[in-house]
Amino acid sequence: MRLLAETCDAIVTVDVEAARRMQQRLDGKTKPRGSLGVLEVLACQIASVYGVDVPPLPRKAVVVMAADHGVAAEGVSAYPAEVTGQMVRNFATGGAAINVLARQAKARIVVVDMGTKSPTNVPLTPALSPKEEGSKKLKGGGSKKALSAHGREGWGGGIFRQSSLGPGTANFTRGPAMSKEVAVRGLEMGIGLAAELAAEGVGLLGVGDMGIANTTAASALTAVLCGQAVERVTGRGTGIDAARWQRKIQVIERALAINRPDPTDPLDTLAKLGGFEIAGLAGVLLGAAARRLPVILDGFITGAAALLAVRFCPAVRGYLIASHRSVEPGHQVILKELGLRPLLDLEMRLGEGTGAALAMHLVEASLRIAREMATFAAAGVTDTGA
Amino acid sequence: MRLLAETCDAIVTVDVEAARRMQQRLDGKTKPRGSLGVLEVLACQIASVYGVDVPPLPRKAVVVMAADHGVAAEGVSAYPAEVTGQMVRNFATGGAAINVLARQAKARIVVVDMGTKSPTNVPLTPALSPKEEGSKKLKGGGSKKALSAHGREGWGGGIFRQSSLGPGTANFTRGPAMSKEVAVRGLEMGIGLAAELAAEGVGLLGVGDMGIANTTAASALTAVLCGQAVERVTGRGTGIDAARWQRKIQVIERALAINRPDPTDPLDTLAKLGGFEIAGLAGVLLGAAARRLPVILDGFITGAAALLAVRFCPAVRGYLIASHRSVEPGHQVILKELGLRPLLDLEMRLGEGTGAALAMHLVEASLRIAREMATFAAAGVTDTGA
Repeated sequence: MRLLAETCDAIVTVDVEAARRMQQRLDGKTKPRGSLGVLEVLACQIASVYGVDVPPLPRKAVVVMAADHGVAAEGVSAYPAEVTGQMVRNFATGGAAINVLARQAKARIVVVDMGTKSPTNVPLTPALSPKEEGSKKLKGGGSKKALSAHGREGWGGGIFRQSSLGPGTANFTRGPAMSKEVAVRGLEMGIGLAAELAAEGVGLLGVGDMGIANTTAASALTAVLCGQAVERVTGRGTGIDAARWQRKIQVIERALAINRPDPTDPLDTLAKLGGFEIAGLAGVLLGAAARRLPVILDGFITGAAALLAVRFCPAVRGYLIASHRSVEPGHQVILKELGLRPLLDLEMRLGEGTGAALAMHLVEASLRIAREMATFAAAGVTDTGA
Repeated sequence: MRLLAETCDAIVTVDVEAARRMQQRLDGKTKPRGSLGVLEVLACQIASVYGVDVPPLPRKAVVVMAADHGVAAEGVSAYPAEVTGQMVRNFATGGAAINVLARQAKARIVVVDMGTKSPTNVPLTPALSPKEEGSKKLKGGGSKKALSAHGREGWGGGIFRQSSLGPGTANFTRGPAMSKEVAVRGLEMGIGLAAELAAEGVGLLGVGDMGIANTTAASALTAVLCGQAVERVTGRGTGIDAARWQRKIQVIERALAINRPDPTDPLDTLAKLGGFEIAGLAGVLLGAAARRLPVILDGFITGAAALLAVRFCPAVRGYLIASHRSVEPGHQVILKELGLRPLLDLEMRLGEGTGAALAMHLVEASLRIAREMATFAAAGVTDTGA
């Protein structure tokens, strides 16, 4: 609890003066003022997060947190709970979508088992990258060696960490998903991980999730924290039919009636309706903000974690970048609540951090523009001020 | 004229069976069916363009065509016409936004002066890349040597080509912008360039433009080819005020009244209202489709070129990828007319191919997903068919 409180205290509002200076810098570049639209806004945001005039091109990491959810027993998902653990193994051996996209983004991947039902049994030896990658060695940012002291290595540049809070949360239709003590432990694990990555020289984080039934938890959290009807913030998850969707809504309504979470108390709401990975992710966001790291959110689950983090500490808001607009209806509600404009709108609904990894390219593009473009003066181009 | 006709004859409809097989392939990957949304659609499109089951990761190039417009004399732009030539020099020395983004995308850049007012005076020696890049050598895809036989080199991996059709088009408020013969020459230059790049092993093209007053030409073309009121397809270009915007509309209306282009005849419309770079770009699109290369469009100007190319040969449509939604209102009209869904919506309005270069990352991501992700069977993940 002390680490959580200290972290919230340490978070400062982003530096709006640095953002203003970045806009001035961009206005001197050989292009009409503002013509790179959201890329310019993004460069200004990164400058405000770092509090510097010319941000470096940061080392990147994607943190993927996985956990099981007791509510999966209510039949709210198209997949059985065992798939969470299976996918953790898939992450660790480099075969999932997030592995592919993190490799492309040259981002280190950190997979954290926050508490799955079946043991994840990740092999101790670094797994080979998938066939088509051949024997090429992949370079991750930062020092692999130092990180591997804390966890087992997955594929090149990635690590796997076991931080289990138990074999999944309790079924929240019968009582709280977890105790407040466990919720705090989850939050503080995330805070600790962000601090470690910052110390390793990571300068840009992406976050992602895996957990069968976790859209049920995210919908429940969103309904409470945004004061919305359950039906409005509940979607089809990985692809359920209309009957199961109705069931999912009823399950969430039952959970709210039994748990009566206090919407003004993020810890109470998290403990009663959250998941271990959601607790961990909210912690990563708080820890990142405390270390002045920008964080790229993924979709609905990381959005719910962001809602919680912002309730713990409103200044976190300035550190968040929305990567994409998920097809989950609750995600739109979260984006609106947080005032975030997603960079991509590709009808994705996979999670894992896939949207965050894709958006890293745009963040990097915005910084390259700020660093590399010629000025009107240097290029001898007439500046009319338009 | 013969090359244009032969090229249109050579263009085949994209292979929908290859697209279907790609979707099957994606459905075997460890993710819910369709959960990568537009990325999956994109992988299917690339497969249909190449007509193969597992497309390679293609070598990339961005073709930027520049030209001046006689109509600039009517005061329709916030910038003087000399900026076209100044920006061509900026492209050749690596300082423009497209240079930065093409470098990030690892795409070769091909700058073509299709006809500017002032001589572009691009230095014969390879220019240094901008300061922040230091002395690092940049690697372009493909064989630089072979291409440099046809044109002077700009920065590493890029080429500059002089293909001038004259010192800009005529002022189309007084008669046609160019003769039909010149329009055909422009189209055939573009066709030839696409064929050369295909022969060099380029597998993915982006296109971009530069030309002061060219949104005026694009608006005129869009009004005619889409049967829309001039006001609806005319925007603020690089940033003009309301008075100049009114003037721009009047100028276009005058041009339509004087030239009376035939909306069913793309060559007539192009010659009367187009620009040299728009002719060249339309040619690049036709040439790319004839060589089965996918082409990523940029914004409004390349969209107008796409309208023309599709009128010359409707099968071109399947080869086109819309990178982004420009803030120019005419661009929305074009996207709707062509049935294209833009990948990005970042409120950009710069041109140069900047949107196309950014979108290359997404195209590559879609192919990496298809190539590198593990299947349910290989990863031991339960497949419920959801």
